[in-house]
Amino acid sequence: MNSFGDNWTFTSFGESHGVAVGGVLDGVPAGISIDIDLIRHELTRRSGSGQTGVSPRATHEKDEVEWLSGVLDGVTLGTPVAFIIRNTNAHPEDYEWMKTHFRPGHADYTYQNKYGIRDWRGGGRASARETASRVVAGNIARQALVEQGITIHAELVQVGTEKDPTRFDQLLQSVRQQGDSIGGIVRCTVDGLPVGVGEPIFDKLQSHLAAAMMSINGCKGFEYGTGFDMTPSGSDLYLSEQAPCTTSGGIEGGISNGLPVIFRCAFKPAATLTRLYKGRHDSCIAVRAVPVVEAMTALVLINLIR
Amino acid sequence: MNSFGDNWTFTSFGESHGVAVGGVLDGVPAGISIDIDLIRHELTRRSGSGQTGVSPRATHEKDEVEWLSGVLDGVTLGTPVAFIIRNTNAHPEDYEWMKTHFRPGHADYTYQNKYGIRDWRGGGRASARETASRVVAGNIARQALVEQGITIHAELVQVGTEKDPTRFDQLLQSVRQQGDSIGGIVRCTVDGLPVGVGEPIFDKLQSHLAAAMMSINGCKGFEYGTGFDMTPSGSDLYLSEQAPCTTSGGIEGGISNGLPVIFRCAFKPAATLTRLYKGRHDSCIAVRAVPVVEAMTALVLINLIR
Amino acid sequence: MNSFGDNWTFTSFGESHGVAVGGVLDGVPAGISIDIDLIRHELTRRSGSGQTGVSPRATHEKDEVEWLSGVLDGVTLGTPVAFIIRNTNAHPEDYEWMKTHFRPGHADYTYQNKYGIRDWRGGGRASARETASRVVAGNIARQALVEQGITIHAELVQVGTEKDPTRFDQLLQSVRQQGDSIGGIVRCTVDGLPVGVGEPIFDKLQSHLAAAMMSINGCKGFEYGTGFDMTPSGSDLYLSEQAPCTTSGGIEGGISNGLPVIFRCAFKPAATLTRLYKGRHDSCIAVRAVPVVEAMTALVLINLIR
Amino acid sequence: MNSFGDNWTFTSFGESHGVAVGGVLDGVPAGISIDIDLIRHELTRRSGSGQTGVSPRATHEKDEVEWLSGVLDGVTLGTPVAFIIRNTNAHPEDYEWMKTHFRPGHADYTYQNKYGIRDWRGGGRASARETASRVVAGNIARQALVEQGITIHAELVQVGTEKDPTRFDQLLQSVRQQGDSIGGIVRCTVDGLPVGVGEPIFDKLQSHLAAAMMSINGCKGFEYGTGFDMTPSGSDLYLSEQAPCTTSGGIEGGISNGLPVIFRCAFKPAATLTRLYKGRHDSCIAVRAVPVVEAMTALVLINLIR
Repeated sequence: MNSFGDNWTFTSFGESHGVAVGGVLDGVPAGISIDIDLIRHELTRRSGSGQTGVSPRATHEKDEVEWLSGVLDGVTLGTPVAFIIRNTNAHPEDYEWMKTHFRPGHADYTYQNKYGIRDWRGGGRASARETASRVVAGNIARQALVEQGITIHAELVQVGTEKDPTRFDQLLQSVRQQGDSIGGIVRCTVDGLPVGVGEPIFDKLQSHLAAAMMSINGCKGFEYGTGFDMTPSGSDLYLSEQAPCTTSGGIEGGISNGLPVIFRCAFKPAATLTRLYKGRHDSCIAVRAVPVVEAMTALVLINLIR
Repeated sequence: MNSFGDNWTFTSFGESHGVAVGGVLDGVPAGISIDIDLIRHELTRRSGSGQTGVSPRATHEKDEVEWLSGVLDGVTLGTPVAFIIRNTNAHPEDYEWMKTHFRPGHADYTYQNKYGIRDWRGGGRASARETASRVVAGNIARQALVEQGITIHAELVQVGTEKDPTRFDQLLQSVRQQGDSIGGIVRCTVDGLPVGVGEPIFDKLQSHLAAAMMSINGCKGFEYGTGFDMTPSGSDLYLSEQAPCTTSGGIEGGISNGLPVIFRCAFKPAATLTRLYKGRHDSCIAVRAVPVVEAMTALVLINLIR
Repeated sequence: MNSFGDNWTFTSFGESHGVAVGGVLDGVPAGISIDIDLIRHELTRRSGSGQTGVSPRATHEKDEVEWLSGVLDGVTLGTPVAFIIRNTNAHPEDYEWMKTHFRPGHADYTYQNKYGIRDWRGGGRASARETASRVVAGNIARQALVEQGITIHAELVQVGTEKDPTRFDQLLQSVRQQGDSIGGIVRCTVDGLPVGVGEPIFDKLQSHLAAAMMSINGCKGFEYGTGFDMTPSGSDLYLSEQAPCTTSGGIEGGISNGLPVIFRCAFKPAATLTRLYKGRHDSCIAVRAVPVVEAMTALVLINLIR
Repeated sequence: MNSFGDNWTFTSFGESHGVAVGGVLDGVPAGISIDIDLIRHELTRRSGSGQTGVSPRATHEKDEVEWLSGVLDGVTLGTPVAFIIRNTNAHPEDYEWMKTHFRPGHADYTYQNKYGIRDWRGGGRASARETASRVVAGNIARQALVEQGITIHAELVQVGTEKDPTRFDQLLQSVRQQGDSIGGIVRCTVDGLPVGVGEPIFDKLQSHLAAAMMSINGCKGFEYGTGFDMTPSGSDLYLSEQAPCTTSGGIEGGISNGLPVIFRCAFKPAATLTRLYKGRHDSCIAVRAVPVVEAMTALVLINLIR
């Protein structure tokens, strides 16, 4: 349940307020260079440092990766790459109230029922802090993809009902000041993907992307191509269309068609409202989801490209 | 690539215009009764016989299941359940044009590029006919779920932009007469699911549901809970909310919370327009997708309930 | 539990006295020619027709393969290859006594305890008849290996304590006449395997070979290289030795070293003695195991060569 | 390739002379007590400290486990249990000669050919040091088994051709003094295993045990029941035998029959002879294999008991 992919298998571990979060990435070929600075940069993006809409803890986190195995002088050995990020700057005392309170829309209630025990400190394993490991692993994969000419770019394209990016900052500040939260939509584009990635029937590219995105905390929807837009008819879409089809989001029959792959993920407003709960909370989790969407996309692709 | 699930593993095989489509369902415990009539009924629903919006081939198909193993006197033996449905009423001559033509939004172009070969007859393996096997396997799972008090119900809730079901038939007829096609949205509800189904991190209930739905031909979007609706703020949703949370679509932290699980799937308008292409084509593939959504939901749940 | 391999995945189904035994082989690339005659020949070897030491049922079985999918004009399509072999010449009435009797060294007792139900007719799923499916699937893999210059050859090298093959026939006849049974050892040699097949740690070549051989009915031991021979010391073996090492059975560090891979499998005497039990029984199951050892070896290799 | 089991999944990482070896054990239920002292004791057994036949490095190793996640106050949380053992007392300078020399019967040659790169320092990933992680993970599983009344005991039953344990020490000392090495056989007994563990066809108990044992460095053979002993005939074994069968090593039809499960593993003489190679080497690797055999047995069983 804590592993992803059967080609480059990523196993995630660690509690939010334990010793460390970390991961093992197995299946990485020998000889891949790891750009440590780029991974540090992506961790900073994930931490949301300096961005509007994220928790103040973010701005003080200094996520440093400790490499345990599989890497020598910045180059992979072909053996499992293991790493940890120690948990610092945790204030478990801020979360005492979570011991006895189940937040709506969170794992508190379901974990307690399923396991009869939970690490309540900041969400434990269910905390979004776990995504730091995904960012490290995903960006190792991403660098291997870049060498094949494949690039991944995600961005926030909607905050609440606002679609004009120039107005996002102001809206996010206003939401934060009210101690409220707001949803958002992240769009991700993959350029340079060759024709042929994805498998028929149950291992379609869109199935793997959807599963990966829905595994990110707060993600409530996934769509590609026409998605949930029901306005166009078949004639509108296909009368003058050729294959590879431009309205298919880059995927036909479950397989990449050589055009850019484009998909969108909906993130709900966070349930942990600052006006209600002590602790440090994001007012728009979609902001910090952007590098996680990219990282998970990289993990999906590296597992499907053979 | 043709198997689904690691608990009750379903393996699908067969080409649209070959000898048969079929499947093997491994992991089924001994002693489960299989209601053959119900499976026949679901196959008829999938074939769309007598329904508006589906291809005329549908109304003439007589899908008969041949049980090869794993079942004795209608009861499972605990060994793999294998079955086939022979392909009859195929008119491959209607599809000669597909030999040299790639339909937009279909697997034609991508399969040819990926494999260097494809069975062009009616789509071969990529044909929606493959879903007949899913309906058989899914309904074996469904009967095991019913015995645990878990029921699954899907329905068409939108055709194009129309949300009033009483108007669907007229709209579908009009689309068909124009030789056009139209999209649709299917909503699925699971009742009776206990708290605790789904696993943290990468095996969240919504990840498995999304992957399964996105594997159905023509499915372009998946959402649950607030999904792509960005109108409510956190305060709107959570101020007076308790866990289990009623606005979460029955899933919190990746795990069922004991409330009904509700999700929605968007289906695109079919690309094979009757006004363009010889052969028998659906004008709204969402219609026939309904029993497939139910079958795949059953396969997801039977694999996650332990 | 009825699937083998994650690259070319073979799923086996069917009861000994049901409609058919069969299988699905998923992951086979498009464009591989299948030599139907060779598969028929291997099925005849497995049936033991005309060989000393096998059950009389064998000599009357006519195993005909029905191809259900994945093959067109003797060439694979890249889709799942499904096939069945119908059960004919079954005499379930000969096995009535098995309804109430647990044979020692058989699955009768354990199946009944594990499942609370068993198909007692000729052993049902636990019958060696299931290996017919393995022979079909294994020989599809084998033909793909042959095209890569890799050949597999197994042979009986010991019957009881007798190691001179020219004396096997007489010994087997004598055992049969006494209504008794006898053990045997099968040696298998793989020629042409390149350096590099097998993975470190848990996916070593010898681990996969051992698991596959131990899955064959009646196999009680597996060894390669020096195996259970404890006579030589390190000096005896290695003083003048170079890598690739000739005393390693073709495997070093879990990975093929380019020399022939050689291993040996021990088969017990059958528990179903003709002097005790009605029905048709082998007096030396190692005889018919030879083509099954070859088939399973082919499935192992095709799954490890990437 | 570095993961074992699909129920309690153990992922191993770390190079012999890198920062640390370690592992992640995923699937461990919440609430299992971990006896840290017992794990330390088993690590000492594996290190061979104070035993005859093992390398002097062993006697100086102080393997301390650092717990990274999944355990709180000695009790599991239901989340992945991650741990490391830092590498200390490594003398890489002793292994300089390995840079340019391929030892026979080792992974040196095959790794270099397969990967084009290898961590030559003490064998890197192929070093037996990797088994320290297995001992930690296996003994967590073992404690869960003990709570179910299942105990595992392995012992050295043969050194070279010597079967009398009272003579082992003297023989091992003599071999060491000559700078030579010698093979050995380890027998393992599982007591208290209920009827029903193991699955038919490809997931037989003996298949999983054989694969696990053959994954241990230097293991060249596996047998259970009559194994490679070809002296008894069917009549000798079965005439007065009942099921559960006492000559079957505790397994019938791939499934445990409720009697003790007993199997034997053959270990070759080590190829790294002290009289030839600088460094610290075992003269009988079977000695230190004993706790590893137990640990791997525990991992097999915890994955098959459902």
